[in-house]
Amino acid sequence: MIPLEVKPTGNTEQFNLQQYLHQKKEKIEKALDASLPIGEPAKIYEAMRYSLLAGGKRLRPILCLATAELLGQTEEVAMPTAIALEMIHTMSLIHDDLPAMDNDDYRRGRLTNHKVYGEDIAILAGDGLLAYSFEYVAKNTTGVPPERVVKVLAILGEAVGAKGLVGGQVLDLEYEGKPDITAEMLTSIHRRKTGALLEACVSCGAVLAGAQPEDLQRLSGYAQNIGLAFQIVDDILDVTATSEELGKTAGKDVSAQKATYPRLWGVEVSRQKARELVDAAIQQLSFYGEKAIPLCAIAEYIVSRKN
Amino acid sequence: MIPLEVKPTGNTEQFNLQQYLHQKKEKIEKALDASLPIGEPAKIYEAMRYSLLAGGKRLRPILCLATAELLGQTEEVAMPTAIALEMIHTMSLIHDDLPAMDNDDYRRGRLTNHKVYGEDIAILAGDGLLAYSFEYVAKNTTGVPPERVVKVLAILGEAVGAKGLVGGQVLDLEYEGKPDITAEMLTSIHRRKTGALLEACVSCGAVLAGAQPEDLQRLSGYAQNIGLAFQIVDDILDVTATSEELGKTAGKDVSAQKATYPRLWGVEVSRQKARELVDAAIQQLSFYGEKAIPLCAIAEYIVSRKN
Repeated sequence: MIPLEVKPTGNTEQFNLQQYLHQKKEKIEKALDASLPIGEPAKIYEAMRYSLLAGGKRLRPILCLATAELLGQTEEVAMPTAIALEMIHTMSLIHDDLPAMDNDDYRRGRLTNHKVYGEDIAILAGDGLLAYSFEYVAKNTTGVPPERVVKVLAILGEAVGAKGLVGGQVLDLEYEGKPDITAEMLTSIHRRKTGALLEACVSCGAVLAGAQPEDLQRLSGYAQNIGLAFQIVDDILDVTATSEELGKTAGKDVSAQKATYPRLWGVEVSRQKARELVDAAIQQLSFYGEKAIPLCAIAEYIVSRKN
Repeated sequence: MIPLEVKPTGNTEQFNLQQYLHQKKEKIEKALDASLPIGEPAKIYEAMRYSLLAGGKRLRPILCLATAELLGQTEEVAMPTAIALEMIHTMSLIHDDLPAMDNDDYRRGRLTNHKVYGEDIAILAGDGLLAYSFEYVAKNTTGVPPERVVKVLAILGEAVGAKGLVGGQVLDLEYEGKPDITAEMLTSIHRRKTGALLEACVSCGAVLAGAQPEDLQRLSGYAQNIGLAFQIVDDILDVTATSEELGKTAGKDVSAQKATYPRLWGVEVSRQKARELVDAAIQQLSFYGEKAIPLCAIAEYIVSRKN
């Protein structure tokens, strides 16, 4: 069991999560910036960059890099895929925020893409980021056999499509205004809307490292557990945090009559379930011993985060 | 020079384009239908299938298959990529038709996707098709070295993104209501909006066949010429054909104050330019002799089509 080791102890030999996340995030920000120079027509590149470089936790690329490194792959080899995962995540935020969908004006403390560039450009910026994510992986991944790159691209496609993100968003729209669905139904929405891409982060990192089927099984278990914990915490924060803390409109789930875990279980039980899921995620990685400390610490972070 | 040979002569030993297109289209329709079975939630799969299986000339997949076969590759190996190209084309039509973009009610003689399923689902159906196109190629292409699959995925991504389709649509939106742009500017829009994907059809087919750089150069030349000819003929048909013939609103370019080739050059000169481009496209393939007859006949078809 690793949990004890990942708790901050003040001992400098212990793992410092804040520093780890900060270092990874810095490298990712640089790589994101370099990945998409302004081209012609400038407007579409600016719109894509506006949302791609709007900050955020960069949790998805970090998960990809950390998983690749756990299994002995270098950060350099996994970076193009990590960047692509953030492009995909950004695309899903741009499209979800559109007036025809969730109709959000703010995201990460700034105006949403369509509020700045118009709906037409926002739709196209999302399309552009999605297409570019695949192109970017295909063109920039070096140092691994090409069959691994093909596998990564298949995983990315499946995570975004109707079996993943897109299907999850459709379910989410269908159940809006029907807040009394069961926990099972709610979980099936989130497994796709949030879980599929988080699992893809881990699976892609693992595939790039030449993971064995047992590795993929353990890591998928880890990802599914943290994915659900992440969503539960998101729902809790929507109730307990302010809009300023979140960088987006708080209390939106309640006003949109959305089914949420706090609504189903109450805040305290929701917190407890998130904690259990994170413990289960960490348990999945016990096989890897100390090498899994970064991934375990990320799981801890997911449940303790404030935004 | 091949043009004389591809004209219908009644001789059964001569190439029969109608039959060729019909046979290819039938196989493609079957493969498209099989590529996307209904899953959960049914609504998104139905929306994706509604537009994907709405008919059309299937010119893009046919170009991909014909190019692969010209260079000695089998139809079977190229089919997943051919299908993906049609998914991408369909996605671009769904998103272009949205109220925030060209705001079209009819496409291929039927209501547009958002008129049937709503804007939210139409946006997601496009996203789902785009993501699935990459997944489909990555999972279903067999019988070629994986580096060719990676190259195909890179070509597809680039053709859709800001350098291709997406950038072309942005330029098109920017120049709406400004019908007096130069022929050079108009051509630069269409090279991306129509040309990039047509060129990708040919390039992907070639890459799957293990094309040499000289092959790619010749075939790109062919594709660029037919791409532009295709757009000129589209513009001419918007003026000369009825909505019924087109399956979409005719005369839309004039009412939307769009720059078009007939507006710049008049209908007759436009026809002549299209003819010259097709001749140049056919000339690019003279190296391949009789093996290039299908691609030459497709070029002829592009300039003589009625919808």
